[in-house]
Amino acid sequence: MSHRVWRLGDDVDTDALAPGPAMKFGLDEIATHCLETVRPDFAAGVRPGDVLVAGRNFGIGSSREQAASVLRHLGVAAVIAPSYSGLYWRNALNVGLLVLTCARAGEIGEGEAVDFDARAGWVQRAHGERLPCEPVPGFLLDMVDAGGLLPSLRRRLAHGG
Amino acid sequence: MSHRVWRLGDDVDTDALAPGPAMKFGLDEIATHCLETVRPDFAAGVRPGDVLVAGRNFGIGSSREQAASVLRHLGVAAVIAPSYSGLYWRNALNVGLLVLTCARAGEIGEGEAVDFDARAGWVQRAHGERLPCEPVPGFLLDMVDAGGLLPSLRRRLAHGG
Repeated sequence: MSHRVWRLGDDVDTDALAPGPAMKFGLDEIATHCLETVRPDFAAGVRPGDVLVAGRNFGIGSSREQAASVLRHLGVAAVIAPSYSGLYWRNALNVGLLVLTCARAGEIGEGEAVDFDARAGWVQRAHGERLPCEPVPGFLLDMVDAGGLLPSLRRRLAHGG
Repeated sequence: MSHRVWRLGDDVDTDALAPGPAMKFGLDEIATHCLETVRPDFAAGVRPGDVLVAGRNFGIGSSREQAASVLRHLGVAAVIAPSYSGLYWRNALNVGLLVLTCARAGEIGEGEAVDFDARAGWVQRAHGERLPCEPVPGFLLDMVDAGGLLPSLRRRLAHGG
């Protein structure tokens, strides 16, 4: 399965992802304004399975979890960037959004079709080259697969494990 | 209270913090080799309350939690850096190590005496200038104060809260 790439620059902040004026209206409304200041075509054009490929320090700014959950709400399969705000990285996995750390993300092009394997730690470009990513531990990927921290805990409690 | 600064460069990885050959011998042994490849004077010279001021991508590499817990074991009061591996940032707070994200960390000098307020979001240099940091949410600082995720959960369970 391949994923269509939306390219973004460095320092995309939480206010660009979840704009302040939309915050009180919930995720559906936040989603229609997601990234409008940096990619006005994104909110209307994104399709489930697409990925964001960004620059350094993705997700800096505030602690609002909606900045991560809005991307999951829009069906974004993963964010791929060379570095993140630590708090964003933490929030993202907690809400079930996959975030891959890839030092060479800048080589990936707008609109390119990529594949990735978070467990093995690579992103494959359209022409076949594989870029290494920091591997994400299995227990965190399992949490993402379960939909995030709370669904994962609920599932474990329900199964007594 | 002021904190003495140890300066480090970009891309300090988990193998520099917790060297592979020492891993099986536990934290006391890991601590004697902590950062020996980049700051051979560190392990013997660090004093409780000191801080590390590093460059970009602090803590990249493997998922080993000892790379964070060894600094707490040595009494390091905080790491201050412009960016972290997301996984390191997560592990650090979970083991009770404070990690501050400060875009201007590079301005701080070796041996300088600094102060910081993680809740308010600043690091104060020796001459009084305050550098802004990304604020860390209160519930995460409370977890760090409790010694990390597991002590924090144990305390909450014991108090029924």
